[in-house]
Amino acid sequence: MRETELSILKSAAKIFAEKGYDKATLQQIADAVGIKKGSLYYYIEGKEDLLVRIADSMIDYWIKEIRRVTRQPLPPKEKLEAFIKAHVNLLAGDFERLCVFLHEYKSLKPEWRNKIVAKRDEYDRLIEEAIEEGIENDCFSPFDAKLVTLAIMGMCNWLYQWYSATGRVSIDEIAASFSDLILKGLLNQKERG
Amino acid sequence: MRETELSILKSAAKIFAEKGYDKATLQQIADAVGIKKGSLYYYIEGKEDLLVRIADSMIDYWIKEIRRVTRQPLPPKEKLEAFIKAHVNLLAGDFERLCVFLHEYKSLKPEWRNKIVAKRDEYDRLIEEAIEEGIENDCFSPFDAKLVTLAIMGMCNWLYQWYSATGRVSIDEIAASFSDLILKGLLNQKERG
Repeated sequence: MRETELSILKSAAKIFAEKGYDKATLQQIADAVGIKKGSLYYYIEGKEDLLVRIADSMIDYWIKEIRRVTRQPLPPKEKLEAFIKAHVNLLAGDFERLCVFLHEYKSLKPEWRNKIVAKRDEYDRLIEEAIEEGIENDCFSPFDAKLVTLAIMGMCNWLYQWYSATGRVSIDEIAASFSDLILKGLLNQKERG
Repeated sequence: MRETELSILKSAAKIFAEKGYDKATLQQIADAVGIKKGSLYYYIEGKEDLLVRIADSMIDYWIKEIRRVTRQPLPPKEKLEAFIKAHVNLLAGDFERLCVFLHEYKSLKPEWRNKIVAKRDEYDRLIEEAIEEGIENDCFSPFDAKLVTLAIMGMCNWLYQWYSATGRVSIDEIAASFSDLILKGLLNQKERG
């Protein structure tokens, strides 16, 4: 990706996050990049195209990172822990792009929304496969792997509603606590029956 | 609440959910209710006031319903199960208002947003107290009750991204699976060490 193009995507994500996608203008984005508004069209088709490319480049990056985790020859428990840690770190590191993505993708044109949803589903499949592997190996209880995936994604992705980089707990503490909750369960041994 | 007022709130929630809050107009809401746009101002101050009252009335109702659950003299495990079941049923039953609320509350004026956030926190406290009770009774492991609350709320609230009333699994199956996951944990007995 050319440098100006990258700078446009970064500035747009920041402005969309600050002002809201609907209220943000291409003029503000051009000003932030330091080019004329007319020159923007050399790189992008318009505001919706920008939003799609922000989401698209974010998910591509996340898929690449998570593949590295799920491809490791780890036992299911350790793989799931590594996934949760990597996933919440991606969330925290990409907070602005993520908020824009989650807030706006449903309002995209169907063909663009479908493209993004397909990639999101590809991402979710990586964790679902790791859970299925654990169930097949009898390491995990025979849960519905799809529902467990949605539960874990919800638990983690909900950070976009409450996480603050300056909050009481660090992102690694959150990852450790969530992994512990998912993997060990909330009940003490004696209560497990 | 007067009948027309209730009808205005219902129609507004539906139109906000369908068209998006920013694009929805008071004219569309007046048309749906069957009154003149000017008459709307007899009941409401404007569009933002409508949004606040939709969110406010929804959370008030949810708090009332959940208080009935958390006040029951149940052991911690059963109380948490009852909470999760009641919460996801509230989510599914109020899907339109919930989507509007989650999508828009961050863009409210600070004084109005703070009022809504305070009520949401009051709601979250009900479940946090139930978890604290379980930890104090040594029924639950000594987790950070706040983080567990956020994990459960995330897991459940994320339904707004994927739940469909016509989907493969019913809302009660989802509640049962999530309760099971949270309460028993994902690992088999022999793996728990």
